[in-house]
Amino acid sequence: MAFPSDLQIARAASLKPIEDVAGEMGIGAHLVEQHGRDVLKIRLEAIEELADRPKAKYVVVSAVTPTPLGEGKTTTTVGLGQAMKHIGRRATVAIRQPSMGPTFGIKGGAAGGGYAQVVPMELLNLHLTGDFHAVTAAHNMLSALLDNHLFQGNAAGLDPHGITWRRVLDVNDRVLRNVIVGLGTHTDGIPRQTGFDITAASEVMAIFALARSVREMRERFGRVVVGYTGDGKPVTAEDIGGAGAMTVIMREALKPNLLQTLENTPVLVHAGPFGNIAHGNSSVVADLIGIRGGDFLITEAGFGADMGAERFFNIKCRASGLTPDAAVVVATVRALKAHSGRFKIVAGRPLPDALLAENPDDVHAGAANLRKQIENIRLHGVSPVVAINAFPDDHPSEHAAIREIAEAVGARVAVCRHFAEGGAGATELAEAVAEAADEPTDFRFLYPDSASLREKIEVVATKVYGADGVDYDLRAARQLDRYERNGFGDLPVCIAKTHLSISSDSSLKGAPTGWRMPVREVRASIGAGFIYPICGDMRTMPGLGADPAAHRIDIDENDEIVGLS
Amino acid sequence: MAFPSDLQIARAASLKPIEDVAGEMGIGAHLVEQHGRDVLKIRLEAIEELADRPKAKYVVVSAVTPTPLGEGKTTTTVGLGQAMKHIGRRATVAIRQPSMGPTFGIKGGAAGGGYAQVVPMELLNLHLTGDFHAVTAAHNMLSALLDNHLFQGNAAGLDPHGITWRRVLDVNDRVLRNVIVGLGTHTDGIPRQTGFDITAASEVMAIFALARSVREMRERFGRVVVGYTGDGKPVTAEDIGGAGAMTVIMREALKPNLLQTLENTPVLVHAGPFGNIAHGNSSVVADLIGIRGGDFLITEAGFGADMGAERFFNIKCRASGLTPDAAVVVATVRALKAHSGRFKIVAGRPLPDALLAENPDDVHAGAANLRKQIENIRLHGVSPVVAINAFPDDHPSEHAAIREIAEAVGARVAVCRHFAEGGAGATELAEAVAEAADEPTDFRFLYPDSASLREKIEVVATKVYGADGVDYDLRAARQLDRYERNGFGDLPVCIAKTHLSISSDSSLKGAPTGWRMPVREVRASIGAGFIYPICGDMRTMPGLGADPAAHRIDIDENDEIVGLS
Repeated sequence: MAFPSDLQIARAASLKPIEDVAGEMGIGAHLVEQHGRDVLKIRLEAIEELADRPKAKYVVVSAVTPTPLGEGKTTTTVGLGQAMKHIGRRATVAIRQPSMGPTFGIKGGAAGGGYAQVVPMELLNLHLTGDFHAVTAAHNMLSALLDNHLFQGNAAGLDPHGITWRRVLDVNDRVLRNVIVGLGTHTDGIPRQTGFDITAASEVMAIFALARSVREMRERFGRVVVGYTGDGKPVTAEDIGGAGAMTVIMREALKPNLLQTLENTPVLVHAGPFGNIAHGNSSVVADLIGIRGGDFLITEAGFGADMGAERFFNIKCRASGLTPDAAVVVATVRALKAHSGRFKIVAGRPLPDALLAENPDDVHAGAANLRKQIENIRLHGVSPVVAINAFPDDHPSEHAAIREIAEAVGARVAVCRHFAEGGAGATELAEAVAEAADEPTDFRFLYPDSASLREKIEVVATKVYGADGVDYDLRAARQLDRYERNGFGDLPVCIAKTHLSISSDSSLKGAPTGWRMPVREVRASIGAGFIYPICGDMRTMPGLGADPAAHRIDIDENDEIVGLS
Repeated sequence: MAFPSDLQIARAASLKPIEDVAGEMGIGAHLVEQHGRDVLKIRLEAIEELADRPKAKYVVVSAVTPTPLGEGKTTTTVGLGQAMKHIGRRATVAIRQPSMGPTFGIKGGAAGGGYAQVVPMELLNLHLTGDFHAVTAAHNMLSALLDNHLFQGNAAGLDPHGITWRRVLDVNDRVLRNVIVGLGTHTDGIPRQTGFDITAASEVMAIFALARSVREMRERFGRVVVGYTGDGKPVTAEDIGGAGAMTVIMREALKPNLLQTLENTPVLVHAGPFGNIAHGNSSVVADLIGIRGGDFLITEAGFGADMGAERFFNIKCRASGLTPDAAVVVATVRALKAHSGRFKIVAGRPLPDALLAENPDDVHAGAANLRKQIENIRLHGVSPVVAINAFPDDHPSEHAAIREIAEAVGARVAVCRHFAEGGAGATELAEAVAEAADEPTDFRFLYPDSASLREKIEVVATKVYGADGVDYDLRAARQLDRYERNGFGDLPVCIAKTHLSISSDSSLKGAPTGWRMPVREVRASIGAGFIYPICGDMRTMPGLGADPAAHRIDIDENDEIVGLS
C-alpha cells in the first residue's frame, strides 16, 4: 500500500475541540476567540493571567545548513511536540505562519508532513485568520500615506531618492520587484521608481513578530524609518502620521493563533518574518503565552543554526526576555552527503542515484557542517541535541555515521521517524531534549548592545560563520556610519546572506574557512529593531516557475481543495 | 447634552450572542462558524437546508440621486430593519462590506450611524473576516500568473498591449493608478504599463457577489477575460491556469458574514462591488440565505435608483433568481434642495446657510429627481416607498413638501428618524414597506437577454436616465462589435457613469432631459457576467486627501480604537 499523501493523512485526522486544546494549556474560554471551527485566537491578556503558572522548558529547533529541498525542520518540530506526550510530558509547539506566495509557487504548503502535521492544513496554508493580510494592509497604508505626503507638499522634506519604504504583496510576482509608480496626469501623484517585496519581508511583519503588546507595537511602528531627508535625517512613520492607522489595522492580528497537530498537541502559529533580511522566527507574544502552557515550548527558527538560531538567540530572545533551555539541530543523511561537496542537489529534480546509495563515508565527509552548527548553538551557552530526521531511503549505517559525528563532540543525538510514525517515532528525541533541557543553562548573547555595529557584524561573521574577517563596500561603510550617527548603533544585527552555506557564498559546502565576508550594503529596520547588512543578492520578492503549484491547486467535484501539500 | 458619537453609541450597545441571532433566522449551530465573539460565517449548505422555510418579502433600499455627502441609505436600511421588530415583524438586513480604502481616506467608516448601526463597527470597518483580502489575493494571484505566462513564453499568444487584467489593493493610493512593472534585469519579468484598482473594483469581487455556489464561482473565474491575442481572441483565466487557485483562495470568503444591528436585527454583510464599473450590490448567496430568515429581507443597492437599483433589478436579480416585492427610495431635504440647482454641496465643507434655512419651495424645485427615481422603480414593476430620512436641521414644512411630491405620483411615503431614535423612529416606514410588499408584484427586467448590447445600453439610457439617445465613440463601437462577435452579446449591461446625476454629466441636477449619452469605451467583466460602457471619467483607484482619516485613526491609552465613525 502506498504511503498516503499529506492531504489524505490530514483529512483523516481526529481533531480535538480546539477550546479543549487551549484548556489543556491553562487558557480559559474568556481568553480565546473562535475563528472557524478549528482555530482560536488568544487574547493578549493571557500573558499576564498565566504569569503565575510554571514556566515551560524553552526549546528551539534549528538545523544543519539545508539543501534546497529543506531537511524537515517543521516536521521535526511538530514530531517532537507530538512525541512529548508519548514520554508523559506536555508540549506546545510554536511555528511561523507560511506565506501564500510560496504555497502557490513551488511549495504547495508548509504544515509539516506525513504523520507530523499541523491541522487543518488548508487553513494553515491559506489565509489562516488573515494576519498576513493585515500586515500587507498596514504596510501599504503607510506606503500610500508616504506617496500622499510627497504629493501634498512633502512637509517632512523627504528626498524622493532617499525613500526606503516599498510596498508588499503576499504573492510570488517577479514583475513587481522594480516598478515606476505615479504615472498618468498631475492628479495621479509624483512619479518615482520603487518596488514590491513579499509580505513576509515587510518590516511590519518583523515588528508584529517582536512586539510584546499592542502599545509596544504602536511604538515600534512609530520608529519605522521610511526614508531620509536631503541632508540624511531619518523620516519616520510617526512623522508622516501613519503609526496609529497601522496599529489599528494590526491590533487583532497580534493575538496568536492556536491550532493542533495530528495528535492534538497545541500549536501556536503566528507571524512569519523572512529568514534572510529579517529574523525568521515566529512571534514573541505566542512564546510568552506558550511558555506557560505545559512542560515544553518547542519553537522553530528558520534555515540552519547559523541563520535562524543565531537570530533567535540574539534578536528574538533580546526582545522577549525569554531564555532557551535546549536547541535541536535537525540533520539528514542527504544534507550531510551534500556537504561532502560530492553531490549537487537541485530543487525540483530527483536526488542523484549516487547520493541514495549506502555510503557512510559520504556522510562523514560532510561532518564539518554539523560540527560547526553544534558549535554555533554552544556559542550561546545552550545544549544541542542532534535530531536525525530519517527518510525511507536512508541506511542504518548512515544514521550511525551521523551519531558518531555528533557524539564525538559530546552532543546528544536521536534518530526520529515522526514522518512515518508520528510522535511515537520521535520519543528518543523527546527523551534527549528533556535531558538536555534539564541541564543548568548558561545562555548568553553573542555581543552586548553597546558593541559597535561593525563589531557585531564581525563577531557573527567570524565566530558563527567562520569568516576570517569582513570587507565593507564604500556604500556599506557610509551607511554604517550614518546609522551610528543616527543613534541606531545599539541595535542587534541580522546578517542577510545565503541560507545554503554557513559562509556568504552558497556554493561553499561543509564549514568553509579561509574566506572574508563582503558587505555590499546595510539596511535598517529601526521599528523592528535591527540593522541588516546585505551579503550577496537577497531576493525579497520571489518569482513563479514555468509550472507553478497554482496551476494544480483547485477544487474537486466535492468542492474540496486539491493540490496543497 | 451633546448627541453621542457613533463610536460611543456602538460601544454602549447590548449585543445578543450572535449564534442566537442566527438561531432566530432558523440557522442552526451546524451551519455557522464563529469568527471572533460577534461574527459568524454561514455555510452555504444553509441555502438548501432552509429552502422549505417561508420566503421573506424582498425589499431593496435605493435613493434619490445623492449629494457628495450621501443621504443615509445604509442608515435607513439598518433603521428599517430595526423598525420591523417594533411593528411585530422579523427582518434581516443585507448590506455590502465597506472598503478599507475609503475608511482610512475620507469616510472613517460605513456602519450606518447614530442609533441605526451595525455592530461591532470596528470589525465591520476593518478586516471583518478577511473576505476583501481574499479578493485581493485571488485577483493578484491571477495577475502574477498572467505576467508569468508572458515571461515563460506566452503560449496563449497574449498581446501585451491587449491585456485588460490589472492588479488591486484595498487602499486609496493614487500613485498606483498607472505603473510600469517588470523593470530590472532579465529575471525580473517583461516590462509593461499597467495599474492597480481598489479591491472593490475587482471583477473577483463582482463574481463573488453574484455566484450562487463555489462551483459556479469556479466557472465564472474560468470565464474571466484577462486580455486578447494579437488577432482579438479573448484569453481567459482558465487558459492561463488561474481559475482553480482563485477558487481555493476565495472558497471560505463565499460564506456570508452575520452581524447584528444595535437592536439585534440580523445583518448579513457580504461582498462590496463598486457601484460604478460594477453592480454595487451585496452578495447573492447572502440574499439566498436571508430570504429564508424571517418576514422581510432588506437589502441596499449603491447610489441612486438609476444606478444601484437598476443593477439590482437587471443584474443581481438575473443572477439570483429572486424577485423584489418593494423598493425604498431614500430622500432627504438637502438632496432635493440640491436638485433645485440653487445650491452647491461640497464634501468636507459645511452646508450653505441658505440651504439650511426653511424653504419648502427649494424642495419642490428639486422634485423632478425624486419623481424620476420613483419612475425608475416602477419601470421594473416594483412598488416604491419614499423614506424621508430626517436630519436635525430639517423643518416639518420641508418634510411635508417631499410628502406632497411623492403622494402626487401615488407613492407611499414615511418620515423616519432612526438616526436619532433607532427602530422606533422608523415604524411609519416599516408599515409603509409592509403594505407595499403585500401588493401583487409585476416584476420585470428592463430588457431581455436576447437584445443586442446597443439596445440594452439605449433602453437604460433613454428609459432610466432620460437621455434622448446614445453616441458611441469609434473605440466604443469597435469594442461592442468585438463583444457581440465573441458571443458576449447576451450579457446584461452595467453603465459606468457618475452617481451625482441621473444623466452622465455630474453637474446636471434634477432629472435632466434633452441630452445624449456619450459612450467613450466599453469594457467587459465576462466572469461576473456584464458589459460595462464607460461614460465619462471613471476613477477605479481613489486617492488620499491632504488630511486623510488615517491621520486620526489610532489607539487610545486603553488600546481602544479612536477615529472610526
